[in-house]
Amino acid sequence: MLNFDFQMPTRLVFGRDTQQQIGTLLRPYASRILLHYGGGSIRRSGLYDQVTASLRDAGIAFTELGGVVPNPRLTLVREGIALCRREGIELILAVGGGSAIDSAKAIAMGVRFDGDVWDIFGQDLQVTEALPVATVLTIPAAGSELSNSCVITKEETQQKIGHTAQCVRPVLSILNPELFQTLPKNQIAYGVADMMSHIMERYFTNTLHTDVTDELCEGALRAILKNAPKVLADPADYDAWCEIGWAGAMAHNDILGVGREQDWACHGMEHELSAIYDIPHGAGLAVLTPAWMRYVYRKHIPIFLQFAQNVMGIRGSLRAPEALIAEAIDRLEGFFQSLGLPVRLTEVGIGQEHWELMAQKTTGAAYGDEIGRGFLEKLHWQDVINIFRLAK
Amino acid sequence: MLNFDFQMPTRLVFGRDTQQQIGTLLRPYASRILLHYGGGSIRRSGLYDQVTASLRDAGIAFTELGGVVPNPRLTLVREGIALCRREGIELILAVGGGSAIDSAKAIAMGVRFDGDVWDIFGQDLQVTEALPVATVLTIPAAGSELSNSCVITKEETQQKIGHTAQCVRPVLSILNPELFQTLPKNQIAYGVADMMSHIMERYFTNTLHTDVTDELCEGALRAILKNAPKVLADPADYDAWCEIGWAGAMAHNDILGVGREQDWACHGMEHELSAIYDIPHGAGLAVLTPAWMRYVYRKHIPIFLQFAQNVMGIRGSLRAPEALIAEAIDRLEGFFQSLGLPVRLTEVGIGQEHWELMAQKTTGAAYGDEIGRGFLEKLHWQDVINIFRLAK
Repeated sequence: MLNFDFQMPTRLVFGRDTQQQIGTLLRPYASRILLHYGGGSIRRSGLYDQVTASLRDAGIAFTELGGVVPNPRLTLVREGIALCRREGIELILAVGGGSAIDSAKAIAMGVRFDGDVWDIFGQDLQVTEALPVATVLTIPAAGSELSNSCVITKEETQQKIGHTAQCVRPVLSILNPELFQTLPKNQIAYGVADMMSHIMERYFTNTLHTDVTDELCEGALRAILKNAPKVLADPADYDAWCEIGWAGAMAHNDILGVGREQDWACHGMEHELSAIYDIPHGAGLAVLTPAWMRYVYRKHIPIFLQFAQNVMGIRGSLRAPEALIAEAIDRLEGFFQSLGLPVRLTEVGIGQEHWELMAQKTTGAAYGDEIGRGFLEKLHWQDVINIFRLAK
Repeated sequence: MLNFDFQMPTRLVFGRDTQQQIGTLLRPYASRILLHYGGGSIRRSGLYDQVTASLRDAGIAFTELGGVVPNPRLTLVREGIALCRREGIELILAVGGGSAIDSAKAIAMGVRFDGDVWDIFGQDLQVTEALPVATVLTIPAAGSELSNSCVITKEETQQKIGHTAQCVRPVLSILNPELFQTLPKNQIAYGVADMMSHIMERYFTNTLHTDVTDELCEGALRAILKNAPKVLADPADYDAWCEIGWAGAMAHNDILGVGREQDWACHGMEHELSAIYDIPHGAGLAVLTPAWMRYVYRKHIPIFLQFAQNVMGIRGSLRAPEALIAEAIDRLEGFFQSLGLPVRLTEVGIGQEHWELMAQKTTGAAYGDEIGRGFLEKLHWQDVINIFRLAK
């Protein structure tokens, strides 16, 4: 196990009706907040009314900034920063999924940053101060509600870049699985692919002696494999939503990743797909992950065999481990398909026209700095092309 | 899953040499601290010198209070409270195991409490303020380094009572598995029994639909079953110590327990054993846990069958689940024995002379308020007697 330094101060308030406590819970932190969200879904569902009523009851003044879109945009982040400064905002409350939360985190850093907020992402600057962020989660997927990271897209340059900073861990997150019961099926599936990827990016490692985190990763993945089909079959299944909600929050807070080198190649590649084609993140991950596995597993038989047995439940002769692993990858792909997810680039409308560009952006070669991507197996841009070929 | 409200703000700094950062890490919190510890072991190991040198280098003034003993005493807590007030202490640094940390937590609450600190325990008073506590852990066992609870013994009345308060979660914990390499074998074994119990107290529940936490509990227990024999066989095995250290910290921070009703009957009974006989907590748990299981499992076949299969690895006909469960309990008891732990009351010098008193203290009957103990199966004092009989 590697040395690590972990801190997750976020207060998580989980369960039925919890969104109605938001005003009371935020009162110790702020009296003037920015309410940040996406489009009309929170108005249609009644969540907007519940949250604003709770804020009013608690005497919290709020300014609104809606319009967050999937793959959240730098333009809106800049607008939010100006708004927060103008209005003397003390905390940003994101009501939505990973996009709203990530946008809120970027704004929160930007408000306290003396310079262009994009430099934090583009130049990976260390920042230690941000406005406090709180969340009311509406889709279990990105795990941003407990995480120390966010991802923003700069539209003009088609760059989608993540940034990690301890100061963006939310101070408070409300997770009420009832709010997930009205999600469209495709969004449910994208969310499942994303949370599974968050665990798998941590799971596939060269670090030895990671029994506890191996076990926690495998267990969380099995719980997702069990419960994701349930919420798709019956979106009213509160119990199954609790499992998916808690698994999604655990998937990306890094408790499952401490003490081990993590991979993150699939996320790196997917960001380049989304940056150019604006596809849902979870769709891109479902396409790329099995292809990545097929490309790298032969050099990493032990960890993939463990995945095959302990996560995908494949049994058979250990004298032919490659066959078991291939079956496990097929089964994972089949699982994604059973959720209605795409598993080929063509299914998400991606032809070969930008393969080289996307591959070179993934590894840095596009910026004249080919550092590669991924830690289980370092990918160079030609490797990424090969993975695209397997995902074609 | 039940609604829950979880927050663990503790910063955990884990790995080799991390104790040498203690001064730097504490500097933001305090310039005058109480250094709280047990006996001579931290002096003999050189840890005392490392910690004090680091504090001096960081310009942190410290007052010392040693003398913490296992089953830490109220008398020393009172002394610590007076000392902290007199010296204007801003933070308490516990260097030791659960006893030193629990003593520090009790002092921390007492300093900010206007009244008799024992009332916090005896009357289970809600307190929301405490001095900050930090820890350098020397034995993985109690999990107090990340937990929100502590247990104190009042010598005169032979009462050992735990208290839970969010304000006692340490602000910082240093966990360097190298420090465990010089532990005596019996203390290693007691620690293993304690951390396993922390997970099992959470695992055995009547709450349905707890897949994620079931999986996490089972995985952590399997990792302990695998690695505990390794550290006993070779105390220099750093990799195995990392697993035991991280599992012990996870066992009691409540991530494995959220959203489910927890049991805690074994801890409740054990406290009464330790209060009168001053036996090691882990020894009492090793004695009582298999007996408790044998007493209650027939009414709770599904969760015990799951334990038998998923934790203890018992396979066999599901048409005779009781046989599988009995085998699992035997195997758990055998595991404890293989670690050198006692599994009978007589082995820890406990005859029948105080059974009734201990049973009635466990359930409240001794105080004229028989509320019972445990949530999987509520035990009345006669049940506790029956469990003592099974553990005789």
